[in-house]
Amino acid sequence: MSTSFKRMLIGKPIATEQQHHERLRKITALAVFSSDALSSVAYATEAILSVLILAGSSALGMGLPVAGGIAALLIVVAISYRQTIHAYPNGGGAYIVAHENLGKLSGLIAAAALLIDYVLTVAVSISAGVAAITSLAGNWGFPGLENFSVEISLLCILVVGLANLRGVKESGAIFALPTYVFIISIVAMLGWGLIGTLFGFARPVVQSVAPTVSASDAIGLWLILRAFAAGCTALTGVEAISNGIPAFKQPEAKNAAITLAWMAAILVTMFLGITWLAGQLHAIPNDLTHETVISQIARSVFGVGPIYTIIQVSTALILVLAANTSYADFPRLSSLLAKDRFLPRHFASQGDRLVFSNGIIVLSLFAAILVVIFKANEIAMLPLYAIGVFISFTLSQGGMVRHHLREREQGWRRGLLINGIGAVLTAVVLAVLAATKFTHGAWSVLVLIPLMVLVFDAIHAHYQSIAAQLSLSNASKPQAVRRITAIVLVSGIHKGVLPALQLARTMAPDNATAVMVNLDPEGSAKIRDRWSEWGCEIPLVILESPFRSLVTPLLHYVDQVDDLYGDDELLIFLPEFVPAHWWEQLLHNQTGLILRAALTFGRGKTIISVPYKLGK
Amino acid sequence: MSTSFKRMLIGKPIATEQQHHERLRKITALAVFSSDALSSVAYATEAILSVLILAGSSALGMGLPVAGGIAALLIVVAISYRQTIHAYPNGGGAYIVAHENLGKLSGLIAAAALLIDYVLTVAVSISAGVAAITSLAGNWGFPGLENFSVEISLLCILVVGLANLRGVKESGAIFALPTYVFIISIVAMLGWGLIGTLFGFARPVVQSVAPTVSASDAIGLWLILRAFAAGCTALTGVEAISNGIPAFKQPEAKNAAITLAWMAAILVTMFLGITWLAGQLHAIPNDLTHETVISQIARSVFGVGPIYTIIQVSTALILVLAANTSYADFPRLSSLLAKDRFLPRHFASQGDRLVFSNGIIVLSLFAAILVVIFKANEIAMLPLYAIGVFISFTLSQGGMVRHHLREREQGWRRGLLINGIGAVLTAVVLAVLAATKFTHGAWSVLVLIPLMVLVFDAIHAHYQSIAAQLSLSNASKPQAVRRITAIVLVSGIHKGVLPALQLARTMAPDNATAVMVNLDPEGSAKIRDRWSEWGCEIPLVILESPFRSLVTPLLHYVDQVDDLYGDDELLIFLPEFVPAHWWEQLLHNQTGLILRAALTFGRGKTIISVPYKLGK
Repeated sequence: MSTSFKRMLIGKPIATEQQHHERLRKITALAVFSSDALSSVAYATEAILSVLILAGSSALGMGLPVAGGIAALLIVVAISYRQTIHAYPNGGGAYIVAHENLGKLSGLIAAAALLIDYVLTVAVSISAGVAAITSLAGNWGFPGLENFSVEISLLCILVVGLANLRGVKESGAIFALPTYVFIISIVAMLGWGLIGTLFGFARPVVQSVAPTVSASDAIGLWLILRAFAAGCTALTGVEAISNGIPAFKQPEAKNAAITLAWMAAILVTMFLGITWLAGQLHAIPNDLTHETVISQIARSVFGVGPIYTIIQVSTALILVLAANTSYADFPRLSSLLAKDRFLPRHFASQGDRLVFSNGIIVLSLFAAILVVIFKANEIAMLPLYAIGVFISFTLSQGGMVRHHLREREQGWRRGLLINGIGAVLTAVVLAVLAATKFTHGAWSVLVLIPLMVLVFDAIHAHYQSIAAQLSLSNASKPQAVRRITAIVLVSGIHKGVLPALQLARTMAPDNATAVMVNLDPEGSAKIRDRWSEWGCEIPLVILESPFRSLVTPLLHYVDQVDDLYGDDELLIFLPEFVPAHWWEQLLHNQTGLILRAALTFGRGKTIISVPYKLGK
Repeated sequence: MSTSFKRMLIGKPIATEQQHHERLRKITALAVFSSDALSSVAYATEAILSVLILAGSSALGMGLPVAGGIAALLIVVAISYRQTIHAYPNGGGAYIVAHENLGKLSGLIAAAALLIDYVLTVAVSISAGVAAITSLAGNWGFPGLENFSVEISLLCILVVGLANLRGVKESGAIFALPTYVFIISIVAMLGWGLIGTLFGFARPVVQSVAPTVSASDAIGLWLILRAFAAGCTALTGVEAISNGIPAFKQPEAKNAAITLAWMAAILVTMFLGITWLAGQLHAIPNDLTHETVISQIARSVFGVGPIYTIIQVSTALILVLAANTSYADFPRLSSLLAKDRFLPRHFASQGDRLVFSNGIIVLSLFAAILVVIFKANEIAMLPLYAIGVFISFTLSQGGMVRHHLREREQGWRRGLLINGIGAVLTAVVLAVLAATKFTHGAWSVLVLIPLMVLVFDAIHAHYQSIAAQLSLSNASKPQAVRRITAIVLVSGIHKGVLPALQLARTMAPDNATAVMVNLDPEGSAKIRDRWSEWGCEIPLVILESPFRSLVTPLLHYVDQVDDLYGDDELLIFLPEFVPAHWWEQLLHNQTGLILRAALTFGRGKTIISVPYKLGK
């Protein structure tokens, strides 16, 4: 029954040979790989403004300069990544580039940082998408939907997770439509907003409920740095194209580089445009209505009507797509780590739908936990976000620097310069992020990353130790079995123990014993009587148990016999009756389970379970 | 390590022969068995008033007449139970009396009702005890402690549960001191309050925060019935003495009957006195401060000082003792049910401290859940309470009626009259309780009881079916084993599989096969090479798995072999390497577990686990 439920949810199994790869045209590839980066404009401006407003509304004017700085950084990072694309045409994720060039530790740090950021991408994007929908609902006269943000977000994670367990076909069509609708409608909003501002017919945002603006902090360098750090979330996802080069049509590297340039241009345009328009129209984060800044701008430019609705819906959709890219990246990275033995091997095995099911499930779980902790408030999650991305940027660019120095390929000096600037710049920004966000929650990420690296390392050591111990290279041929000693652990005298007794007598005709614990002092004589009839001529040992434990005396007896016949192969027979339904097992004492664990894990004994199957 | 932690918490094991029983004097027995009944005065008056106040402060005058009716009912029930004491000198709980006289179904209904009420007794008593302490703290200048009621209550349940897992000695001293301090201090409060009222120096309660009194309901018969029903919680625990007769000194029945009369007299006095004084001093339930009515009366009579503190602390202590009586009753009743095969047999086994550990753990868990659901507000739980007690009263008295009719012992007509009146009266009150409390939560109890009875019955049917199937009465001698066929399920070629191969060759020299699933299409030739060196001369079958499943092809192969050699004894060898620590097992695929479950539960196959123990 559980199987057919699973089939209904995720579909029939897919054979290994049906695995195939679609090659993408640039215009489709842009949609497939850019949703994460482009969708960040849905919250990056709001993130900047929500810091600046701490110094009062007058500080909001700093929004555009801060966004300009971020846009410049974005351009540098994009140029740096073009180098990576050409150097690693088979896909140059930060884990691979850092591992190959800077060593295992750097690779693991990059991997830990990326895994954390993938989880945050899901949580942030889904929450922001739900915020777009609740803002839409609020303006169409259904306020109060934001009270269910957590539930709706969890539902979205469930749906996206299930879709990925089925295996989402990376057919560009699914991605292309919402992505281009989003780009076009945002650009239209910027254009019409610009015209309205120039010709004076654009009216500022009317807040349905006035937000609280308390000028507690003075505007200063620190606040500007904090705003800058908050806006750096716009850079997340920029590395996606360099991970996915093999999916491009030939020439892969060149097409990928061109697509990256397009993406950077679109992202910079939208981000700066939205930030500028927010300033013009006085759109500000509103803690009370939870209406997003994009929603405020859109309804101010177009009014609450069809175009506004398209903007909100396509924003929500591209954010869901952004979350979906993490569902490709997280399982792929965790399977790479598992193949290198840094994560449990479960992450390396493809499920029956050819996807890395365990990675998908783990990602969904952690994202759901974040959504619950942060009550689906994406702005509150942002201090944790982007740290991981900048760690991976820095390590990846640093790895490229090392790469150029080692390879000295054609034009390596130019590459060295570009990646050197990229590495230094992202390292500086990383320091700014860590410093400004530290007390706002980023400490937890900075604590988590070394812990994860330690765990990766411990897992690796474990697998290596197991492999060495199991290796046949220094093994001697096993000795032949000398003689078999059998012990049958019986709970009473009933039909269920007869097959085990019979089998024990066959295997160890001259050295089999049955042993049982008797809790009823008066019952021994009666038991011996019945045993003489049903005991299959195997001698019975009855043990006393002053403390009413069934397990301790049996283990003690097994140890004694083991000492006595040390050279023999000791076989322990566990007769067990098996009810028709597994849950009926719960109605019976779990002595068998405890005995099995103690004999296997503690003593390494061979156990023969002889089941006696019961009917309904 | 987990063992030594358990020892620290609950102490060393106790041998079966150390079991002993202390016989109690009447004065100690009163303390041991009455805490549940007597402690109910801590909330019964407040329960009545919290209903009456719905019709405004003028309705509070009905409190005393309502309490008078409940007191009359209590006297009738107590007289009825004296009959049970004489008829069942070995302990006549409602389950036994109803089961013996009215049949299995009545017995099970009484048992279900009592189990529910025992859980409620713990939740209500602990919550009321914590309310006494938070009221005390509030008056001594530490308000706000009531915000931690849930946490403190859960801690109390944990402590009482652990104490009972250690085994609380029923030495009367622990019970006697707080019980008599409680009785004396409450009587002192009533006496001084009476004098103060007569001589005019008693001043009414000053509410630190005015409670909200909204006269929404008109005072009417329905409201009076509801108040009556709410106050009936004063009767819970009256049956405790009739359960515990064997603990009395000889003559047991006579001593128990006398103690019951004392208890009823004390209970009626305190209950009526508190209700009267609450009316005189205008003590009313206060939703805002959560100060209990007893606390209001006590501080009004004595002022916030040492005597007030003694009253509050002894109230809290006797309430904890009341909860503790459920820790004797619930495990005892559930062990009776388990011995009669109506509950899983786990409830019948005594732990190594000679207590019914599973009953104690289950009781603590359910009580904790109730405390969390009802936020440790005992007044909110009361609608669920007392229904179970009155069901057991009715069935127990009904059983006694049948008993008299059947036994026709000396004086049976008088007994019949007394128990007949008791049965009819408690049945009528039960109807009132069910009707008035139904929509306030009592429906859940009335739904739960039949469900529990169904579960009891299903469990009974299961155990009977198992016993019949395992019975040797119609068994034939087992057939000798004809020939052994062995299949070794191997995951690869490494040291861990060698012992299993060796053992299989010894046991089935001419009919052993090894089988393995190969997921790497190119690897087969290499595997065959290595197998020829290490395979212990056992033929190897390599299975293909187009859907990458390890389990399905192996099971399919086992089924094929089983069909082929149907008469043979089929032994399935599972070689497994065992890491040094059990948690390291999590890092390896759980294929072995799934195979084991499918082979044991689905197919009833004999499985031989051959462990290969690894070092650190």
